[in-house]
Amino acid sequence: MSSSDIFIGETIGTAVLILLGGGVVAAVVLKRSKAQNAGWLAITFGWGFAVMTAVYMTGALSGAHLNPAVTLGIAIKDNDWGNVPVYFAGQLLGAMIGAVLVWLAYYGQFRAHLTDPEVIGEPIDEKAIEGPHDESASAAGPVLGVFSTGPEIRNVWQNLATEIIGTLVLVLAVLTQGLNDSGKGLGPVGGLMVALVVVGIGLSLGGPTGYAINPARDLGPRIVHALLPLPNKGGSDWSYSWIPIAGPLVGAALAAGIYNLAFA
Amino acid sequence: MSSSDIFIGETIGTAVLILLGGGVVAAVVLKRSKAQNAGWLAITFGWGFAVMTAVYMTGALSGAHLNPAVTLGIAIKDNDWGNVPVYFAGQLLGAMIGAVLVWLAYYGQFRAHLTDPEVIGEPIDEKAIEGPHDESASAAGPVLGVFSTGPEIRNVWQNLATEIIGTLVLVLAVLTQGLNDSGKGLGPVGGLMVALVVVGIGLSLGGPTGYAINPARDLGPRIVHALLPLPNKGGSDWSYSWIPIAGPLVGAALAAGIYNLAFA
Amino acid sequence: MSSSDIFIGETIGTAVLILLGGGVVAAVVLKRSKAQNAGWLAITFGWGFAVMTAVYMTGALSGAHLNPAVTLGIAIKDNDWGNVPVYFAGQLLGAMIGAVLVWLAYYGQFRAHLTDPEVIGEPIDEKAIEGPHDESASAAGPVLGVFSTGPEIRNVWQNLATEIIGTLVLVLAVLTQGLNDSGKGLGPVGGLMVALVVVGIGLSLGGPTGYAINPARDLGPRIVHALLPLPNKGGSDWSYSWIPIAGPLVGAALAAGIYNLAFA
Amino acid sequence: MSSSDIFIGETIGTAVLILLGGGVVAAVVLKRSKAQNAGWLAITFGWGFAVMTAVYMTGALSGAHLNPAVTLGIAIKDNDWGNVPVYFAGQLLGAMIGAVLVWLAYYGQFRAHLTDPEVIGEPIDEKAIEGPHDESASAAGPVLGVFSTGPEIRNVWQNLATEIIGTLVLVLAVLTQGLNDSGKGLGPVGGLMVALVVVGIGLSLGGPTGYAINPARDLGPRIVHALLPLPNKGGSDWSYSWIPIAGPLVGAALAAGIYNLAFA
Repeated sequence: MSSSDIFIGETIGTAVLILLGGGVVAAVVLKRSKAQNAGWLAITFGWGFAVMTAVYMTGALSGAHLNPAVTLGIAIKDNDWGNVPVYFAGQLLGAMIGAVLVWLAYYGQFRAHLTDPEVIGEPIDEKAIEGPHDESASAAGPVLGVFSTGPEIRNVWQNLATEIIGTLVLVLAVLTQGLNDSGKGLGPVGGLMVALVVVGIGLSLGGPTGYAINPARDLGPRIVHALLPLPNKGGSDWSYSWIPIAGPLVGAALAAGIYNLAFA
Repeated sequence: MSSSDIFIGETIGTAVLILLGGGVVAAVVLKRSKAQNAGWLAITFGWGFAVMTAVYMTGALSGAHLNPAVTLGIAIKDNDWGNVPVYFAGQLLGAMIGAVLVWLAYYGQFRAHLTDPEVIGEPIDEKAIEGPHDESASAAGPVLGVFSTGPEIRNVWQNLATEIIGTLVLVLAVLTQGLNDSGKGLGPVGGLMVALVVVGIGLSLGGPTGYAINPARDLGPRIVHALLPLPNKGGSDWSYSWIPIAGPLVGAALAAGIYNLAFA
Repeated sequence: MSSSDIFIGETIGTAVLILLGGGVVAAVVLKRSKAQNAGWLAITFGWGFAVMTAVYMTGALSGAHLNPAVTLGIAIKDNDWGNVPVYFAGQLLGAMIGAVLVWLAYYGQFRAHLTDPEVIGEPIDEKAIEGPHDESASAAGPVLGVFSTGPEIRNVWQNLATEIIGTLVLVLAVLTQGLNDSGKGLGPVGGLMVALVVVGIGLSLGGPTGYAINPARDLGPRIVHALLPLPNKGGSDWSYSWIPIAGPLVGAALAAGIYNLAFA
Repeated sequence: MSSSDIFIGETIGTAVLILLGGGVVAAVVLKRSKAQNAGWLAITFGWGFAVMTAVYMTGALSGAHLNPAVTLGIAIKDNDWGNVPVYFAGQLLGAMIGAVLVWLAYYGQFRAHLTDPEVIGEPIDEKAIEGPHDESASAAGPVLGVFSTGPEIRNVWQNLATEIIGTLVLVLAVLTQGLNDSGKGLGPVGGLMVALVVVGIGLSLGGPTGYAINPARDLGPRIVHALLPLPNKGGSDWSYSWIPIAGPLVGAALAAGIYNLAFA
């Protein structure tokens, strides 16, 4: 597995992951979408099949980590850090490309949603750290939610804990499945399993923070949100942005530790 | 794989695909159906299991392309165009047969829906290219939706882009899975995977245009809609009909290009 | 595969099928159930996993037909009629046992539903062949629906056609899968596939008649409905009962014919 | 398979099972969760993917029973009781750990739910054995439901019967699948199958009692509910607590008996 294959695989795979994952949020929350109000189950299955599709496509190319937390967990387990920067770079670039593709596919829906006088409200007050994150109060909240995660209740310690626990489950599932030899890819059944684990984490642990469980999945699209020329888009909630990076990395390290203690 | 097997396999397979795919839309949108208002998740799973069932049945016979975009993608990848016309012919014929079977299975529901005074409205104004495609404004909108796709917001460039992106994901997934040797069929697990990829595309990219991602799936039933003796059925929206043909073919060509550059 | 294994396997398997299949309808329609109003998607997945569980358990014992239409289709395909009566007997007995188990598991819910003054209405008028089958008009309608199917619109020809088409899809999927050698069982992945085909048929073709697609599934529980001491239970709608027997058998014969012509 | 591997595997596996299983109930019922009111289908799929994830992780370590009823069924079938106490201990400890993790992940949601003046009501009256268990009458009902099961209609015999029937289906499915040699683990496809059987049991037999079908799943979290410092949490409904222990054990014994009579 060459560095170039890893970079290409992670870029394409993470782009597909975010295209389909951000896409399902756009489909469910934006106005003038056939899937509007399709509900939480639709969102969690959408993200799961996004994982499955992306793993399926790129497993043979890069091992389909598609997530810096997975890369970190595998690196700790194997104590092999050689390709980590290549993985990270591909994942962040892919996440940004995927977010741009969501914007293309839902171009009219974004415009309709943000300029419809019925839904225009105040942009998110980034200083309101404690207190309800009432997404329905403005059209900007759901739009940011297409790109990045945000908590229902802002509480640094709980938000971190939820992201740590969710990622711990994901990475422990990936490690125990045994990427038979690191970076060999998961095979079709393995991809389905990981996908359904992600659906399960979304259903069970997504309620408080929207389950980033993947730093690239959150940071890449947040950067794109900040750059895109969307009218009335509001702030990109940078004050929260470190939690979906730090939480997943801590969770992955814990998973690798549990793996080495209990399973190796 | 003889031409005759290909033709029979694609005809039967695409007929089953459209019978079950159009059927789930009929089940969810028509009056006097037990599944009325079962929601978008039901529609996307219904189409996915339609793909699975059809692939499952006809994979050994014709390779189960069931979609001119898939046929095009495979032809470009392999640079083998010999059976392309046979595939296309079977797919279009099968799609028309499937649409007639939906009409048979939901005969009473179509009549109840179209003649119920509460839901009779104006037929679709085919000249209203720009502007809302408000399906709830007449009973004819949902009925056409059982047969063919239509956009929520009419915008040629966005509608094309959404169909291109959705088909690109589908065809790239099919190509990377490796139809081990072209036309050998997908096997049972492969059929499930492709089915869930289609569910995922529906959930994530179906919001703007209803995800045709298959020219035969849209054109065949639209012809049947134009021919069937349905009362108050309204127009068949021919002005839109080229987009779900052109978009998927462009998407498939792009997928084959990406495959040949990055994966071959 | 001995006659005794076949009889035991089909009895246990069909009992589990109807216990879980009738159970999900009870769960969704009866008052005082945690799943009340869980929707059509829940019903179709519930029936699908009922098929999967039953096939999974009894595939090695009897081949897990669990459905006279499947038995008929396989008998025509193989022109082997030796065990057909044993299959039929086990299937009918199993379906009756399953229906009694649903009554036990939902004993209090049946009583609450049928004696609650808010929902007691008129029993079904069995002579109202043409016209709406308005289940919400009485508490007896949903209770019969836990046991047997009934059409939304009573029209002999359409109701027959819908059952024929649905069973044709099911039996053709079973035959093309190749019960490798008749009665050898489907294996775990095969059971899942058939289950998801059944979910698909339910989603796509269940709207008009509730998709019996299995004579034993409809007749056995209807007999139990007629015998059980349920208060205010209304009639068992015997005038409709021949359609979910005749339709599936015709559909199975057509599937076997298509199989022998196109796939053999 | 050493006793220590069994203990560690069952502890980790049951902790993951309850974390994700209790988590999905918290996600759907508590205020200020993104998944609030996601419905019964979300709950049943959430529990199913919880089983899949946990089996997937720990199958190779302990055979992934994760349920005293499964352990009992296998012990009767094999007449091998050596490790039963180790299994039971790991399962109970794991269930308690999982329940504490749910509380951590949903810390703010529990507080918001229980102290919001709109939802504070009377704690459950533990003496009201017969009569409606109206969870919506107080905020405490749903909170206990995150931890343990409770019946919609309190009736000892029906509640026992429902738990017996549900567990019989589960354990018979596990036994007939053949844990090829006892304690060898289920493999990835086997884990998915068992998961979908559990979704099926939830959809079909969960309506009356909430389908404990696992003594550790109910008792462990109930102990944690009694110990946690939750404001206004109400009683832990100990008068019901023996039913989700006795019912599943009886069901498992019946399943082992049926297995030995009909399948062995």
